[in-house]
Amino acid sequence: MAKNASRGLQSFFAPASIAVAGVSPDPDKLGSIIFTNLRESASAGTLRAAVYPVNPKHDQLWGERSFPSIKSLPEVPELLVVAVPAASALDLVKEAANAGVKAAILIPGGFAEVGNRSRQAEIKDLAGRKGMRILGPNTIGLIDMKTGVDTLFLKTTKTTGDGRKIISSRKPLKGSVVVITQSGHLGETVSEELAARGVGVRALVGTGNQLDVSVEEVVEHFAEDEGTSVIAIYLEGLVDGRRFMRAASKAAKPVVALKAGRTGAGGRATLTHTASLAGDYAAYQAAFRQCGAIEARDLQELIDSCVMFSSPSRVTGNRLAVITNAGGVGTIAAEVAEESGLDVDPPGRGSARSLKSAFRGSGFISNASLSNPFDLTATASTEEFVRLTEATLLLPDYDMALVLPTHQTPAIAADIASRLADVMEGKKPAVASVIGWSDLADSIRAEFAARRIPSFPTPERAARALSLAAAWGLRNRSAPVASLSVRDRFASLARHRGTLSAPGTERLLASYGIPSPESRVVTSETNLRPRVPPTFPLACKLLSRDLVHKTEAGGVILDVRDEKTLRSAFLTLRGIARRRRLRFDGVMVQKMVEGIEVIIGGTRDPTFGPTVLVGTGGRLAEVIRDYSVSIAPVNSKEATDMIKRTKLAKVLEGYRGGTKVDVGALARTVAKFSKAMFENPSIAEMEVNPLVASGRSFLAVDARVVIARPGSARIADSSVPRE
Amino acid sequence: MAKNASRGLQSFFAPASIAVAGVSPDPDKLGSIIFTNLRESASAGTLRAAVYPVNPKHDQLWGERSFPSIKSLPEVPELLVVAVPAASALDLVKEAANAGVKAAILIPGGFAEVGNRSRQAEIKDLAGRKGMRILGPNTIGLIDMKTGVDTLFLKTTKTTGDGRKIISSRKPLKGSVVVITQSGHLGETVSEELAARGVGVRALVGTGNQLDVSVEEVVEHFAEDEGTSVIAIYLEGLVDGRRFMRAASKAAKPVVALKAGRTGAGGRATLTHTASLAGDYAAYQAAFRQCGAIEARDLQELIDSCVMFSSPSRVTGNRLAVITNAGGVGTIAAEVAEESGLDVDPPGRGSARSLKSAFRGSGFISNASLSNPFDLTATASTEEFVRLTEATLLLPDYDMALVLPTHQTPAIAADIASRLADVMEGKKPAVASVIGWSDLADSIRAEFAARRIPSFPTPERAARALSLAAAWGLRNRSAPVASLSVRDRFASLARHRGTLSAPGTERLLASYGIPSPESRVVTSETNLRPRVPPTFPLACKLLSRDLVHKTEAGGVILDVRDEKTLRSAFLTLRGIARRRRLRFDGVMVQKMVEGIEVIIGGTRDPTFGPTVLVGTGGRLAEVIRDYSVSIAPVNSKEATDMIKRTKLAKVLEGYRGGTKVDVGALARTVAKFSKAMFENPSIAEMEVNPLVASGRSFLAVDARVVIARPGSARIADSSVPRE
Repeated sequence: MAKNASRGLQSFFAPASIAVAGVSPDPDKLGSIIFTNLRESASAGTLRAAVYPVNPKHDQLWGERSFPSIKSLPEVPELLVVAVPAASALDLVKEAANAGVKAAILIPGGFAEVGNRSRQAEIKDLAGRKGMRILGPNTIGLIDMKTGVDTLFLKTTKTTGDGRKIISSRKPLKGSVVVITQSGHLGETVSEELAARGVGVRALVGTGNQLDVSVEEVVEHFAEDEGTSVIAIYLEGLVDGRRFMRAASKAAKPVVALKAGRTGAGGRATLTHTASLAGDYAAYQAAFRQCGAIEARDLQELIDSCVMFSSPSRVTGNRLAVITNAGGVGTIAAEVAEESGLDVDPPGRGSARSLKSAFRGSGFISNASLSNPFDLTATASTEEFVRLTEATLLLPDYDMALVLPTHQTPAIAADIASRLADVMEGKKPAVASVIGWSDLADSIRAEFAARRIPSFPTPERAARALSLAAAWGLRNRSAPVASLSVRDRFASLARHRGTLSAPGTERLLASYGIPSPESRVVTSETNLRPRVPPTFPLACKLLSRDLVHKTEAGGVILDVRDEKTLRSAFLTLRGIARRRRLRFDGVMVQKMVEGIEVIIGGTRDPTFGPTVLVGTGGRLAEVIRDYSVSIAPVNSKEATDMIKRTKLAKVLEGYRGGTKVDVGALARTVAKFSKAMFENPSIAEMEVNPLVASGRSFLAVDARVVIARPGSARIADSSVPRE
Repeated sequence: MAKNASRGLQSFFAPASIAVAGVSPDPDKLGSIIFTNLRESASAGTLRAAVYPVNPKHDQLWGERSFPSIKSLPEVPELLVVAVPAASALDLVKEAANAGVKAAILIPGGFAEVGNRSRQAEIKDLAGRKGMRILGPNTIGLIDMKTGVDTLFLKTTKTTGDGRKIISSRKPLKGSVVVITQSGHLGETVSEELAARGVGVRALVGTGNQLDVSVEEVVEHFAEDEGTSVIAIYLEGLVDGRRFMRAASKAAKPVVALKAGRTGAGGRATLTHTASLAGDYAAYQAAFRQCGAIEARDLQELIDSCVMFSSPSRVTGNRLAVITNAGGVGTIAAEVAEESGLDVDPPGRGSARSLKSAFRGSGFISNASLSNPFDLTATASTEEFVRLTEATLLLPDYDMALVLPTHQTPAIAADIASRLADVMEGKKPAVASVIGWSDLADSIRAEFAARRIPSFPTPERAARALSLAAAWGLRNRSAPVASLSVRDRFASLARHRGTLSAPGTERLLASYGIPSPESRVVTSETNLRPRVPPTFPLACKLLSRDLVHKTEAGGVILDVRDEKTLRSAFLTLRGIARRRRLRFDGVMVQKMVEGIEVIIGGTRDPTFGPTVLVGTGGRLAEVIRDYSVSIAPVNSKEATDMIKRTKLAKVLEGYRGGTKVDVGALARTVAKFSKAMFENPSIAEMEVNPLVASGRSFLAVDARVVIARPGSARIADSSVPRE
């Protein structure tokens, strides 16, 4: 984690002076493009900073004095842009750090992303010691549309084969969207599409390899920026997951992320069901949910959400009205909206009546459907469409509207957009879907954009954008994210290696209020005699520190109902240990308990730390895959939500005459378990499976605690993008 | 089902003469637009048909002689286009049918879609008797780009507020895509976007309410058309599901459907788990899979698949190479491709070596990643990008390629598309993703389109289009779809009402080779005495024709291990019947069996007829929701595939030391069950749950057969769209 506070980023976004290293007479070189862009902004008055070219081989560059080194500059620059190859970057960074430069943007690739970790580590160490902040390496740098800092090295025109100049990339518009990207090009295309759709950008920041400045720190920075309405992220990996959660949770604006690496670190060996179920991506999804961040399903949805959230209106409910003059697209929109969690219900009886009477005499009314979708059919006029849209937006039955005006039908006039905008503005949140590929379609889109009404070219995208807006409006952020402790509450845990013993596991769970069934460990046949404390029927389990999967080895004998069978069970299990050459740690004789089998588990995620999982337990837990994951610790409210997201929730209700379980009490058990994970960093994985639940009784019938080897915490490699 | 064979559709697509009813002096009227369009095509020589206006109120229309009636025309028109309101349509249809008109297109709405069923039924009856085919009502009609028949009534220009003419809809290009739509506007926008992307249309057909001509008949028609490369459908509901399956299965071209109504007929009361799991949409999905049709996930994917399949190349394998100069989009493309079922593996060792040596000395090689994605990074030149694309396409390791040339980077020249197209053509299937919103981006897309290389504006859409192409190339069509019989193989079934008795159910299953556990029905306490044939332990089940859910009522007592317990179990169950006032049909005393609980079920779908389902059984089947559905009957190969699609498959392998089951033998049992559903149309729902499976033993521990009430088959309302 970076030690510097987020105010340190001001030197990147609003420096008093900027030096660019790597400027040359060649206009195609990155350094030249960056320098000339910055100089242009400075002379236009947009950028209020002195800009200096640095190149030891030239005295003059682009008609200005060039400087051979940082030391030779008339002042210590606040920001240094390094646009030289990776091999030369180290010396420059060293010089800058020693000179007192506050921040450096490292453009070149050729560091950790291609395996060159030592080069990157050396720079990190140096900058850390001198207190110089670094963005990159392997980045496009940043654009700040307010201050005019712009290190993007894309040319806006190119020359075609026949010598014509053609616009090759679209400059961002000024606006309120912040784009943070771990892949430079991707961020640029996001801002390009936004510009084409009339939506402007506040800033674009490429974090590259995150040597120092991380995605989460940039989120913190813009979370407090008044000119920012939404923060969109192309995310490969966070450095400090909990710092991200705190920033997103505190922000009063949506944070939307497209997460790459969903398939996660497959193939890692794990000792529990939990670890194989709760992979890296599951932890990211849990974190997003808990901090109120929104996950975009694809690049298009990331861009659409910027369009949606940069509009002034905020969705505060879940009830959608769909208004259209074409049945098919209305049907699709309504269906996708429902699949995305919105309610698309017909109007109440009173509202339906008032609509009918308002439109009595209108030509369209005989064919129209005034349920929801409100389908005027193709014969409706512009006037009727606009009036129905206004009337529907005024109904108390809906929180938002999706308007699909099919402009191709003969009855719809070319000025439909401005007329709709007149009635859509200033009421409830309303978006349009403009479907078509003609000049008229383009002009309708442009008009909606000018009126700040989000529009989308397919009904599905419009419906999904609204569902994201509703998800944000109705988000349910949990309690503040706790910082991780470094010491175990139970100091003795750190002294163990591998798996904790059965009695040790029972004691640990008991200390967190999770009991196990009555049991006794029997190590010799004679011990069976005196009196077997738990009452019949019993379960007998072979204990051996060498045995990972008891059931597969035949190491569990259930439903033992008398002393004779108990003796033979003991002998059988000891025999198995002997034959398999397993150290014999005894036989656990445990009272059989009945109820619903639940799994509760936890892992230590490399990005987010302790996690907790709850779901359908038993031998088939990994096959059934019915579970929910959160970042630990959770309180019982969050644990209740976790349970409700599983199919298990229905079973706990006493499905089809089965056992009933008190969900609140189970949630408290999950919360206690999550606390155990959180308070003891030495635990790498922990799992109770099954926890047998009945009413308010929860018994840990089988459990496992895996202690981390010291220093085994994975480095967050995922934070280094491949580009 | 329409009685006429599909050759009957020729009168719609290639008529010798066309009359248009509803032409008027008003140029905005549908009839006027249609008539003037047709006349223009005829005079241009595109349309080889005589075109007549029909209107009783005018002698002259649009400079031509108008006719007061169909009888007054100089010849009997082969096709009549009805563009008058619904109320006047009936008389016109009557006149046309009596005159011997072969086909009529009914444009107006106002029929079954607004509840006016009798008007629609009358026309259907009349046309059926006279052998006149009808397209619609409630449709845009059709465009045939080959013959010039065009009844679309969209104007291509509109006038803006300031008096400018603006292009308001884009005319389709001539090509090989057939669009069938149950919502007119939607089909038009599909062809509009295709035109904007340089892809042409063979025909566009709106089936509207499917009074006569159905979606499946149009599929049949174009399945045999040589000029058609792909059939894309916006589908609300089929009339005859099996006819569709046969047509799609026989077609040597992809049939792609976007299915609306995925949430299905929710809330219908059902008596089995199966019926609540295998809803209408599940049957559609099963049918698509079995006949090799492709389901598009949204409107955009439907259009993208037209772009993909109208290109000449066919994908024959699953292995994808991703080539890019920008890491982020390459990562996204590879990830989505994998999530969509493609393999994105690194090249083999030999191929990797040969690539490395081919590019030795290239500048980009130090930063590039030549695994997969092949990422040249932003510094690579046009030449290097093109050469690597060519080299990768020649590797034996891949079946197809996705090329993502980021044209915004300084090193990529404006002619990248034509240079890439030179090496992409004629090799393996290869598509491009062109991400950007500039003139250059547009020109690159246009160049790819001109070279017939599909391109997509996001990496995800490109990856998904390729996955659909691979799904089509590797599709696994099952045996021909059987036509439904109308008589039960077991004639006695039709005499039952409601649920079949337990002994009757056992006999029915036994006759299809599905045994039940050894059991005996005991009706009085004294019968318990003589000798209880099945050996202990036993299960006792209360039998009552009034009891639907035995377990919930406490009507099942398991694990009865001695005579004393058996007696008390009997008395308990009889007591339950008395207290609940259920008719007491006895107690079934059944041998307890152990194994894996499987559910096998079947329903009678309103569109597809009998279905079959297999999955994880037991009391929690509806909660776990692990199952696979097919249209019945299935052979054991298809049944094996069904099982493999469930999580149950893993359990049957003997997961974690559990019972093993012979999957082939289970598949044969599923096939037998599906045959029982197929051969006995009186069975509305049938279910074995659990079927207890162990090795090659399968015992129907509990089963239920629901007999349909005569005439209870639902009318396929879903075939009438709402528009």
